Amino acid sequence: MAGTRTSFADLDCGFAQAIEHIGDQWCFLIIRNLLMGMTRFEDFAAHLSISPKILADRLQRLTGEGLIEARPDEDDRRGKIYELTEKGRDLTPVVGALTQWGDRWVPKKGGVRTEFYELSTGEPVTCTVGVSKHGHILSPDEIGHRTGPGGSQVRDELDALVERRKTS
Amino acid sequence: MAGTRTSFADLDCGFAQAIEHIGDQWCFLIIRNLLMGMTRFEDFAAHLSISPKILADRLQRLTGEGLIEARPDEDDRRGKIYELTEKGRDLTPVVGALTQWGDRWVPKKGGVRTEFYELSTGEPVTCTVGVSKHGHILSPDEIGHRTGPGGSQVRDELDALVERRKTS
Repeated sequence: MAGTRTSFADLDCGFAQAIEHIGDQWCFLIIRNLLMGMTRFEDFAAHLSISPKILADRLQRLTGEGLIEARPDEDDRRGKIYELTEKGRDLTPVVGALTQWGDRWVPKKGGVRTEFYELSTGEPVTCTVGVSKHGHILSPDEIGHRTGPGGSQVRDELDALVERRKTS
Repeated sequence: MAGTRTSFADLDCGFAQAIEHIGDQWCFLIIRNLLMGMTRFEDFAAHLSISPKILADRLQRLTGEGLIEARPDEDDRRGKIYELTEKGRDLTPVVGALTQWGDRWVPKKGGVRTEFYELSTGEPVTCTVGVSKHGHILSPDEIGHRTGPGGSQVRDELDALVERRKTS
Protein backbone atom coordinates (compact mmCIF):
# COMPACT_ATOMS: atom_id res chain seq x y z
CA MET A 1 0.00 0.00 0.00
CA ALA A 2 1.31 3.44 -0.91
CA GLY A 3 -0.56 5.43 1.72
CA THR A 4 -4.20 6.38 1.59
CA ARG A 5 -5.80 6.84 -1.77
CA THR A 6 -7.22 10.26 -2.61
CA SER A 7 -8.46 9.48 -6.12
CA PHE A 8 -10.19 6.47 -7.64
CA ALA A 9 -9.59 7.62 -11.22
CA ASP A 10 -6.99 4.95 -11.96
CA LEU A 11 -9.07 2.04 -10.63
CA ASP A 12 -10.14 -0.50 -13.25
CA CYS A 13 -13.68 -0.72 -11.89
CA GLY A 14 -17.00 0.68 -13.12
CA PHE A 15 -18.20 1.45 -9.61
CA ALA A 16 -15.01 3.30 -8.65
CA GLN A 17 -15.17 5.25 -11.91
CA ALA A 18 -18.73 6.25 -11.12
CA ILE A 19 -18.05 7.56 -7.61
CA GLU A 20 -14.86 9.26 -8.83
CA HIS A 21 -16.83 11.04 -11.56
CA ILE A 22 -19.67 12.05 -9.30
CA GLY A 23 -17.39 13.25 -6.53
CA ASP A 24 -18.49 13.91 -2.98
CA GLN A 25 -21.80 14.43 -1.22
CA TRP A 26 -21.95 18.05 -2.37
CA CYS A 27 -21.70 16.96 -5.98
CA PHE A 28 -24.45 14.40 -5.40
CA LEU A 29 -26.73 17.10 -3.95
CA ILE A 30 -25.95 19.49 -6.83
CA ILE A 31 -26.83 16.74 -9.34
CA ARG A 32 -30.06 16.06 -7.44
CA ASN A 33 -30.99 19.76 -7.50
CA LEU A 34 -30.20 19.99 -11.22
CA LEU A 35 -32.46 17.00 -11.84
CA MET A 36 -35.20 18.81 -9.90
CA GLY A 37 -34.86 21.81 -12.22
CA MET A 38 -32.47 24.14 -10.39
CA THR A 39 -30.09 26.02 -12.68
CA ARG A 40 -28.51 29.05 -10.93
CA PHE A 41 -25.38 29.39 -8.80
CA GLU A 42 -27.09 31.53 -6.15
CA ASP A 43 -30.00 29.06 -5.90
CA PHE A 44 -27.65 26.14 -5.20
CA ALA A 45 -25.80 28.26 -2.63
CA ALA A 46 -29.00 29.29 -0.86
CA HIS A 47 -30.74 25.92 -0.96
CA LEU A 48 -27.81 23.72 0.02
CA SER A 49 -26.22 26.12 2.54
CA ILE A 50 -22.96 25.62 0.70
CA SER A 51 -20.17 28.19 0.66
CA PRO A 52 -19.67 29.95 -2.70
CA LYS A 53 -16.08 28.73 -2.78
CA ILE A 54 -16.99 25.05 -2.38
CA LEU A 55 -19.94 25.40 -4.75
CA ALA A 56 -17.77 26.97 -7.49
CA ASP A 57 -15.23 24.18 -7.04
CA ARG A 58 -17.84 21.42 -7.29
CA LEU A 59 -19.55 22.99 -10.32
CA GLN A 60 -16.16 23.20 -12.04
CA ARG A 61 -15.42 19.60 -11.14
CA LEU A 62 -18.76 18.34 -12.46
CA THR A 63 -18.28 20.38 -15.64
CA GLY A 64 -14.82 18.88 -16.08
CA GLU A 65 -16.23 15.38 -15.66
CA GLY A 66 -18.81 16.12 -18.37
CA LEU A 67 -21.80 15.72 -16.05
CA ILE A 68 -23.02 19.31 -16.34
CA GLU A 69 -22.57 22.18 -18.74
CA ALA A 70 -22.89 25.94 -18.29
CA ARG A 71 -24.41 28.32 -20.82
CA PRO A 72 -24.74 32.11 -20.59
CA ASP A 73 -27.88 33.49 -18.97
CA GLU A 74 -29.52 35.66 -21.62
CA ASP A 75 -31.23 37.77 -18.97
CA ASP A 76 -28.06 38.36 -16.94
CA ARG A 77 -24.87 38.57 -18.95
CA ARG A 78 -22.71 37.90 -15.88
CA GLY A 79 -24.74 34.83 -14.94
CA LYS A 80 -24.64 31.22 -16.07
CA ILE A 81 -27.29 28.57 -16.40
CA TYR A 82 -26.18 25.10 -15.34
CA GLU A 83 -27.73 22.00 -16.85
CA LEU A 84 -27.07 18.29 -16.78
CA THR A 85 -25.56 16.66 -19.85
CA GLU A 86 -26.90 13.34 -21.12
CA LYS A 87 -24.21 11.66 -18.99
CA GLY A 88 -25.51 13.55 -15.94
CA ARG A 89 -29.19 12.92 -16.67
CA ASP A 90 -28.36 9.24 -16.93
CA LEU A 91 -27.89 9.32 -13.14
CA THR A 92 -31.65 9.90 -12.67
CA PRO A 93 -32.30 6.29 -11.60
CA VAL A 94 -29.43 6.46 -9.09
CA VAL A 95 -30.81 9.65 -7.56
CA GLY A 96 -34.28 8.13 -7.55
CA ALA A 97 -33.03 4.91 -5.99
CA LEU A 98 -31.18 6.76 -3.22
CA THR A 99 -34.19 9.00 -2.56
CA GLN A 100 -36.54 6.03 -2.30
CA TRP A 101 -34.01 4.18 -0.11
CA GLY A 102 -33.89 7.23 2.18
CA ASP A 103 -37.68 7.43 2.34
CA ARG A 104 -37.84 3.70 3.11
CA TRP A 105 -35.13 3.46 5.78
CA VAL A 106 -35.43 6.91 7.33
CA PRO A 107 -39.20 7.10 7.01
CA LYS A 108 -41.29 10.12 7.79
CA LYS A 109 -44.62 10.04 9.57
CA GLY A 110 -47.26 10.73 6.97
CA GLY A 111 -45.52 8.95 4.13
CA VAL A 112 -42.74 9.42 1.61
CA ARG A 113 -41.25 12.85 1.04
CA THR A 114 -40.81 12.49 -2.71
CA GLU A 115 -42.84 10.53 -5.22
CA PHE A 116 -41.46 9.54 -8.60
CA TYR A 117 -44.06 9.08 -11.32
CA GLU A 118 -44.38 8.29 -14.98
CA LEU A 119 -44.74 11.60 -16.81
CA SER A 120 -47.14 10.20 -19.39
CA THR A 121 -49.55 8.54 -16.92
CA GLY A 122 -48.84 10.04 -13.50
CA GLU A 123 -48.48 6.54 -12.06
CA PRO A 124 -45.78 5.70 -9.50
CA VAL A 125 -42.28 4.72 -10.58
CA THR A 126 -40.02 2.39 -8.62
CA CYS A 127 -36.35 3.32 -8.96
CA THR A 128 -34.76 0.92 -6.47
CA VAL A 129 -34.82 -2.20 -8.60
CA GLY A 130 -32.93 -4.58 -10.74
CA VAL A 131 -34.79 -5.79 -13.80
CA SER A 132 -34.34 -9.15 -15.52
CA LYS A 133 -34.00 -9.65 -19.25
CA HIS A 134 -37.70 -10.48 -19.31
CA GLY A 135 -38.76 -7.36 -17.40
CA HIS A 136 -39.23 -8.95 -13.99
CA ILE A 137 -38.39 -6.80 -10.99
CA LEU A 138 -35.78 -8.60 -8.88
CA SER A 139 -34.99 -8.32 -5.19
CA PRO A 140 -31.36 -7.73 -4.09
CA ASP A 141 -31.09 -11.41 -3.16
CA GLU A 142 -31.88 -12.46 -6.73
CA ILE A 143 -29.02 -10.48 -8.30
CA GLY A 144 -25.51 -11.87 -8.79
CA HIS A 145 -22.41 -10.33 -10.31
CA ARG A 146 -19.41 -11.61 -12.20
CA THR A 147 -16.50 -10.26 -14.19
CA GLY A 148 -17.60 -9.04 -17.62
CA PRO A 149 -15.82 -9.39 -20.97
CA GLY A 150 -13.82 -6.20 -20.32
CA GLY A 151 -12.34 -7.72 -17.20
CA SER A 152 -11.31 -5.76 -14.12
CA GLN A 153 -8.12 -6.02 -12.12
CA VAL A 154 -9.97 -4.58 -9.12
CA ARG A 155 -12.60 -7.31 -9.32
CA ASP A 156 -10.00 -10.03 -9.79
CA GLU A 157 -8.16 -8.88 -6.67
CA LEU A 158 -11.41 -8.66 -4.76
CA ASP A 159 -12.56 -12.10 -5.88
CA ALA A 160 -9.19 -13.58 -4.91
CA LEU A 161 -9.44 -12.14 -1.40
CA VAL A 162 -13.02 -13.37 -1.00
CA GLU A 163 -12.13 -16.80 -2.34
CA ARG A 164 -9.15 -17.13 0.00
CA ARG A 165 -11.45 -16.68 2.99
CA LYS A 166 -13.78 -19.39 1.75
CA THR A 167 -11.04 -21.96 1.45
CA SER A 168 -9.05 -21.08 4.58
CA MET B 1 -26.88 30.68 5.89
CA ALA B 2 -24.94 29.58 8.94
CA GLY B 3 -21.68 28.65 7.24
CA THR B 4 -20.99 25.47 5.33
CA ARG B 5 -22.92 22.39 6.25
CA THR B 6 -20.97 19.37 7.48
CA SER B 7 -23.92 17.04 8.06
CA PHE B 8 -27.12 16.38 6.15
CA ALA B 9 -28.73 14.47 9.02
CA ASP B 10 -31.22 17.23 9.82
CA LEU B 11 -32.41 17.70 6.24
CA ASP B 12 -36.03 16.73 5.61
CA CYS B 13 -35.23 14.92 2.38
CA GLY B 14 -34.99 11.24 1.46
CA PHE B 15 -32.01 11.80 -0.81
CA ALA B 16 -30.06 13.79 1.78
CA GLN B 17 -30.85 11.12 4.39
CA ALA B 18 -29.52 8.45 2.04
CA ILE B 19 -26.19 10.13 1.34
CA GLU B 20 -25.83 11.08 5.01
CA HIS B 21 -26.37 7.43 6.01
CA ILE B 22 -24.04 6.04 3.40
CA GLY B 23 -21.30 8.56 4.09
CA ASP B 24 -18.38 9.26 1.82
CA GLN B 25 -16.74 7.50 -1.10
CA TRP B 26 -14.88 5.14 1.24
CA CYS B 27 -18.15 3.99 2.75
CA PHE B 28 -19.56 3.44 -0.73
CA LEU B 29 -16.56 1.28 -1.67
CA ILE B 30 -16.79 -0.69 1.58
CA ILE B 31 -20.50 -1.35 0.92
CA ARG B 32 -19.63 -2.45 -2.63
CA ASN B 33 -16.96 -4.84 -1.35
CA LEU B 34 -19.35 -6.26 1.25
CA LEU B 35 -21.92 -6.86 -1.48
CA MET B 36 -19.22 -8.70 -3.43
CA GLY B 37 -18.62 -10.99 -0.46
CA MET B 38 -15.71 -9.39 1.39
CA THR B 39 -15.94 -9.67 5.17
CA ARG B 40 -12.56 -9.01 6.86
CA PHE B 41 -10.90 -5.79 8.05
CA GLU B 42 -7.52 -6.66 6.58
CA ASP B 43 -9.09 -7.55 3.21
CA PHE B 44 -10.79 -4.14 2.95
CA ALA B 45 -7.52 -2.46 3.94
CA ALA B 46 -5.50 -4.37 1.35
CA HIS B 47 -8.01 -4.15 -1.49
CA LEU B 48 -9.00 -0.50 -1.13
CA SER B 49 -5.54 0.84 -0.16
CA ILE B 50 -7.23 2.51 2.78
CA SER B 51 -5.43 3.36 6.02
CA PRO B 52 -6.44 1.21 9.02
CA LYS B 53 -7.46 4.37 10.89
CA ILE B 54 -9.85 5.58 8.18
CA LEU B 55 -11.16 2.05 7.60
CA ALA B 56 -11.92 1.54 11.30
CA ASP B 57 -13.69 4.90 11.40
CA ARG B 58 -15.84 4.13 8.35
CA LEU B 59 -16.74 0.62 9.57
CA GLN B 60 -17.80 2.13 12.89
CA ARG B 61 -19.83 4.77 11.08
CA LEU B 62 -21.59 2.22 8.87
CA THR B 63 -22.29 0.04 11.91
CA GLY B 64 -23.75 3.03 13.74
CA GLU B 65 -26.01 3.82 10.78
CA GLY B 66 -27.27 0.23 10.82
CA LEU B 67 -25.92 -0.61 7.36
CA ILE B 68 -23.47 -3.29 8.50
CA GLU B 69 -23.00 -5.49 11.52
CA ALA B 70 -19.97 -7.20 12.98
CA ARG B 71 -19.91 -10.68 14.49
CA PRO B 72 -17.00 -12.53 16.08
CA ASP B 73 -14.82 -14.63 13.81
CA GLU B 74 -15.02 -18.16 15.19
CA ASP B 75 -11.62 -19.02 13.71
CA ASP B 76 -9.87 -15.93 15.07
CA ARG B 77 -11.13 -14.71 18.41
CA ARG B 78 -9.58 -11.26 17.92
CA GLY B 79 -11.14 -10.89 14.47
CA LYS B 80 -14.55 -9.76 13.30
CA ILE B 81 -16.68 -10.66 10.33
CA TYR B 82 -18.51 -7.75 8.77
CA GLU B 83 -21.77 -8.23 6.93
CA LEU B 84 -24.45 -6.01 5.45
CA THR B 85 -27.76 -5.72 7.28
CA GLU B 86 -31.04 -5.83 5.35
CA LYS B 87 -30.85 -2.02 5.20
CA GLY B 88 -27.38 -2.27 3.68
CA ARG B 89 -28.26 -5.06 1.23
CA ASP B 90 -31.14 -2.89 0.05
CA LEU B 91 -28.50 -0.68 -1.58
CA THR B 92 -27.68 -3.45 -4.09
CA PRO B 93 -29.56 -1.73 -6.94
CA VAL B 94 -27.79 1.56 -6.20
CA VAL B 95 -24.39 -0.12 -6.32
CA GLY B 96 -25.43 -1.96 -9.47
CA ALA B 97 -26.75 1.23 -11.06
CA LEU B 98 -23.55 3.12 -10.32
CA THR B 99 -21.40 0.24 -11.58
CA GLN B 100 -23.37 0.01 -14.82
CA TRP B 101 -23.26 3.81 -15.20
CA GLY B 102 -19.47 3.69 -14.79
CA ASP B 103 -19.15 0.90 -17.35
CA ARG B 104 -21.36 2.87 -19.76
CA TRP B 105 -19.76 6.32 -19.44
CA VAL B 106 -16.17 5.30 -18.72
CA PRO B 107 -16.18 2.29 -21.03
CA LYS B 108 -13.41 -0.22 -21.33
CA LYS B 109 -12.21 -1.71 -24.56
CA GLY B 110 -13.43 -5.29 -24.65
CA GLY B 111 -16.71 -4.63 -22.85
CA VAL B 112 -18.13 -4.10 -19.39
CA ARG B 113 -16.02 -4.86 -16.34
CA THR B 114 -18.84 -6.27 -14.24
CA GLU B 115 -21.97 -8.12 -15.28
CA PHE B 116 -25.02 -8.37 -13.06
CA TYR B 117 -27.19 -11.41 -13.62
CA GLU B 118 -30.27 -13.13 -12.29
CA LEU B 119 -29.10 -15.83 -9.90
CA SER B 120 -31.86 -18.26 -10.87
CA THR B 121 -31.35 -18.01 -14.65
CA GLY B 122 -27.92 -16.44 -15.21
CA GLU B 123 -29.49 -13.87 -17.51
CA PRO B 124 -28.40 -10.21 -17.47
CA VAL B 125 -29.89 -7.76 -14.99
CA THR B 126 -30.30 -4.04 -15.67
CA CYS B 127 -29.95 -1.96 -12.51
CA THR B 128 -30.06 1.55 -13.98
CA VAL B 129 -33.78 1.85 -14.52
CA GLY B 130 -37.03 3.24 -13.29
CA VAL B 131 -39.94 0.84 -13.57
CA SER B 132 -43.57 1.83 -14.03
CA LYS B 133 -46.50 0.43 -12.07
CA HIS B 134 -47.11 -1.93 -14.99
CA GLY B 135 -43.51 -3.14 -15.19
CA HIS B 136 -42.37 -1.00 -18.09
CA ILE B 137 -38.77 0.15 -18.02
CA LEU B 138 -38.67 3.94 -18.27
CA SER B 139 -35.96 6.26 -19.53
CA PRO B 140 -34.81 9.17 -17.31
CA ASP B 141 -36.85 11.55 -19.48
CA GLU B 142 -40.05 9.65 -18.69
CA ILE B 143 -39.74 10.02 -14.92
CA GLY B 144 -41.13 12.97 -12.97
CA HIS B 145 -41.04 13.76 -9.25
CA ARG B 146 -43.33 15.57 -6.85
CA THR B 147 -43.72 16.06 -3.14
CA GLY B 148 -45.16 12.96 -1.46
CA PRO B 149 -47.72 12.72 1.35
CA GLY B 150 -44.97 13.05 3.98
CA GLY B 151 -43.97 16.42 2.57
CA SER B 152 -40.47 17.83 2.62
CA GLN B 153 -39.34 21.29 3.61
CA VAL B 154 -36.21 20.80 1.50
CA ARG B 155 -38.30 20.01 -1.57
CA ASP B 156 -40.66 22.93 -0.94
CA GLU B 157 -37.73 25.33 -0.74
CA LEU B 158 -36.20 23.81 -3.86
CA ASP B 159 -39.46 23.97 -5.78
CA ALA B 160 -39.95 27.62 -4.75
CA LEU B 161 -36.49 28.56 -6.03
CA VAL B 162 -37.04 26.69 -9.30
CA GLU B 163 -40.50 28.23 -9.74
CA ARG B 164 -39.19 31.74 -9.10
CA ARG B 165 -36.79 31.37 -12.02
CA LYS B 166 -39.57 30.28 -14.34
CA THR B 167 -41.71 33.32 -13.62
CA SER B 168 -38.94 35.94 -13.45
